Amino acid sequence: MKKRSSCPVACALDIAGDKWTLLVVRDLLRGRNTYGALSASDEGIPTNILADRLRRMEEAGLIEARPYQERPVRYAYSLTGKGRDLGDVLAAAARWGKKHIPGTRIPPEFSSSSRSSLPGRR
Amino acid sequence: MKKRSSCPVACALDIAGDKWTLLVVRDLLRGRNTYGALSASDEGIPTNILADRLRRMEEAGLIEARPYQERPVRYAYSLTGKGRDLGDVLAAAARWGKKHIPGTRIPPEFSSSSRSSLPGRR
Repeated sequence: MKKRSSCPVACALDIAGDKWTLLVVRDLLRGRNTYGALSASDEGIPTNILADRLRRMEEAGLIEARPYQERPVRYAYSLTGKGRDLGDVLAAAARWGKKHIPGTRIPPEFSSSSRSSLPGRR
Repeated sequence: MKKRSSCPVACALDIAGDKWTLLVVRDLLRGRNTYGALSASDEGIPTNILADRLRRMEEAGLIEARPYQERPVRYAYSLTGKGRDLGDVLAAAARWGKKHIPGTRIPPEFSSSSRSSLPGRR
């Protein structure tokens, strides 16, 4: 992909600057690693968008897909180190949303007692 | 705007999850506060997209517009506290990009000696 500039923010947004990629990262971080589990998010990601994002994320080196079943083949997805590091951006976005948007709440897997599961909180 | 869910990340992405909004925040943070200055970014933001983003950002309470000239009227834009707080997300995205995307570099205004100008670094 052609870079828009040498700015690391612009380059990061070229990869993860959309309404869904960080939500897929969020769900992978909380252990939802199959297509079925990822498509069951509260936000109701359209399946064609989920398939497209998983393909792009794999191409960008954010995730790896491994078959866990044959006939029909099914894949389990896992974050690479590069993908896992997006947890820091995710955590910053979560803090901003929690502070500025009334009625939001951190999903239970990420709140207080299990906060360490978010890389940004380590 | 209808929320996709109560997740603060999803809500943050509804407001700032696109390829341009955080770049406008970046440029406002480094003192580019007119339409002309903002449209001169390295990334070459199309003017119709810039106008749309400024309108959305004002509606979302991220920026304020103040006229600084009449006939024709021209506006200067400034970040609100809510918009300025996106600097933390920006800083996390910058760290991720710098670590994982070869050839990126932090713009001079934000690097080492002037690092404190990024809210996330205060």
